[in-house]
Amino acid sequence: MDIITLSHGSGGKLTHNLIEDLFYKHFNNEILAQKNDSSILPSFSGKIAVTTDSFVINPIFFDGGDIGKLSVCGTVNDLAMSGAKPLYLTVGFIIEEGLEMSCLEKIVESIGRTAKEANVKIVAGDTKVVEKGNADKIYINTTGVGVIEKNIYLSGDNAKPGDKVIVSGTLGDHGICIMSKRKNLEFDVSIKSDCGLLNNLVEKILHVSSNVRVLRDPTRGGLATTLNEIANQSRNSILLYEENIPVKDEVRSMCEILGLDPLYVANEGKVVVIVASEDADKVLEEMRKDPMGKDAQIVGEVVKDNSEKVYLKTEIGGTRMLNMPAGELLPRIC
Amino acid sequence: MDIITLSHGSGGKLTHNLIEDLFYKHFNNEILAQKNDSSILPSFSGKIAVTTDSFVINPIFFDGGDIGKLSVCGTVNDLAMSGAKPLYLTVGFIIEEGLEMSCLEKIVESIGRTAKEANVKIVAGDTKVVEKGNADKIYINTTGVGVIEKNIYLSGDNAKPGDKVIVSGTLGDHGICIMSKRKNLEFDVSIKSDCGLLNNLVEKILHVSSNVRVLRDPTRGGLATTLNEIANQSRNSILLYEENIPVKDEVRSMCEILGLDPLYVANEGKVVVIVASEDADKVLEEMRKDPMGKDAQIVGEVVKDNSEKVYLKTEIGGTRMLNMPAGELLPRIC
Repeated sequence: MDIITLSHGSGGKLTHNLIEDLFYKHFNNEILAQKNDSSILPSFSGKIAVTTDSFVINPIFFDGGDIGKLSVCGTVNDLAMSGAKPLYLTVGFIIEEGLEMSCLEKIVESIGRTAKEANVKIVAGDTKVVEKGNADKIYINTTGVGVIEKNIYLSGDNAKPGDKVIVSGTLGDHGICIMSKRKNLEFDVSIKSDCGLLNNLVEKILHVSSNVRVLRDPTRGGLATTLNEIANQSRNSILLYEENIPVKDEVRSMCEILGLDPLYVANEGKVVVIVASEDADKVLEEMRKDPMGKDAQIVGEVVKDNSEKVYLKTEIGGTRMLNMPAGELLPRIC
Repeated sequence: MDIITLSHGSGGKLTHNLIEDLFYKHFNNEILAQKNDSSILPSFSGKIAVTTDSFVINPIFFDGGDIGKLSVCGTVNDLAMSGAKPLYLTVGFIIEEGLEMSCLEKIVESIGRTAKEANVKIVAGDTKVVEKGNADKIYINTTGVGVIEKNIYLSGDNAKPGDKVIVSGTLGDHGICIMSKRKNLEFDVSIKSDCGLLNNLVEKILHVSSNVRVLRDPTRGGLATTLNEIANQSRNSILLYEENIPVKDEVRSMCEILGLDPLYVANEGKVVVIVASEDADKVLEEMRKDPMGKDAQIVGEVVKDNSEKVYLKTEIGGTRMLNMPAGELLPRIC
């Protein structure tokens, strides 16, 4: 069985073989083929957006995706959230000695396929190998470069009282999928991660409304954490209506068993849209036409008060506060 | 004692505290302060250069530097090698649960100080924490964005027969420093890593000559590996003169004890310059005026033959081939 050895990370012959035989095969493009210390990008006009993320998810393969797909989606989505058109990715691997070569190839192939789907090019890479026991199979960093072509400014501090809060679909799918796959937590339900690309959906949203204030993907910490960040940045509060929040029945049941709140569970293919009230229905309608937004719902609104909090109006009529989570919910969810 | 816990990587309150109290303190700039999923960079004109590197060095503190300083120098230097002015860095941390907070702060402070020295801004970041035993203290990815303002093209395939090969100083210092610090390999000599920034030196080189063909920093795999890559890209061969190659006596002795060849040992603050013969003396003189180039030497030349090899003319008059290294030399050297 072919496995990754420390020599694959030494910069010598085996590193070169890995680059030539595996990375160039799946990531091939004319920029990567420059083979220099830096890659030179073609000129483009517009403001540049940059974002970085490391992925340490466990397990590395799961229903609906794998660490390779996730590491492309995560960074492409972060670029899309700023209104940028994602163009380029860099990929850095930290691999544990002993990883099966076939496993790495599956991941690399998945990165290549997802990048192609997102229409982004992988323009630079790096591979390090650490001794067995000093990593857990593989960690991946992706850094993304995109361009903001339109005169657009999306930011957490833009949210204004009266704005509507839309989510693109059911919440908590990714976190519960990963949780159910973890060792010692094998449940008998199959929940698929929502891991997916949001750039097309975002493009449609921005095309149909020029009154979008904020886009944010509610990953680690879920919707509640994301909205707390926005409340904090905008110095407003946010009121959610529990009855409108889409959560799959299986996810809800699993959350009950595990003592989790789906509003705090990670998503990897959902977007939160904060949009001026008058455009909310139009944006919702457009979102529902896209496969990534077919279950979209208006779930709340921005309200004026000085507390910078997130409130949930429950189905039984009460109101509770959704605080920023203090502890660890699900380690290594992304 | 304050330590890093899984909660610091959860995206919740402790992650936010880490960002606000530690990262903003040492990396503070107006772009990072945007606090959105992507950071928007000010417009700039010129071609963009991008590079990425992950750092897994062991130990994380060593004579002459630490993993933080190294992770800035490594990426800034890679940008400089393409003739780009380094402008922006992203930083991704993968931290092992249990790392002392004071240790992280030292590293973050070192990143901040080195970035300031290099005149680059840290514009985006990410922090993941993995369970104890799934990393070794801390791994760092940095991705760099720079701009190529002049009409310049530096690339391994530019090397032409007759061109001179210059190295900016003594070889092998970094690798031997790290080797001597490793557990069970404590020698009684103090060799300082050459870990340092090359962007100023490179700017001077490019200012004094418009006939520079290639710049490359001989990190993992050392000078021999770097020159093999250039021989391969340019389809020429390279002839080195052993007597001209600067190596410190302590490094040479240590290499003899360890059975290593200093030409294959990593450097982290050295540049290899391939320049047209007529400009070689001028470039050498200019390099020696800079503290990072004071020990610069012309060590060889590009020669025409179809073998794409690197040859070493030894001090005793023989010639031997310096092949691309096949195995692991020093794991986790960067």
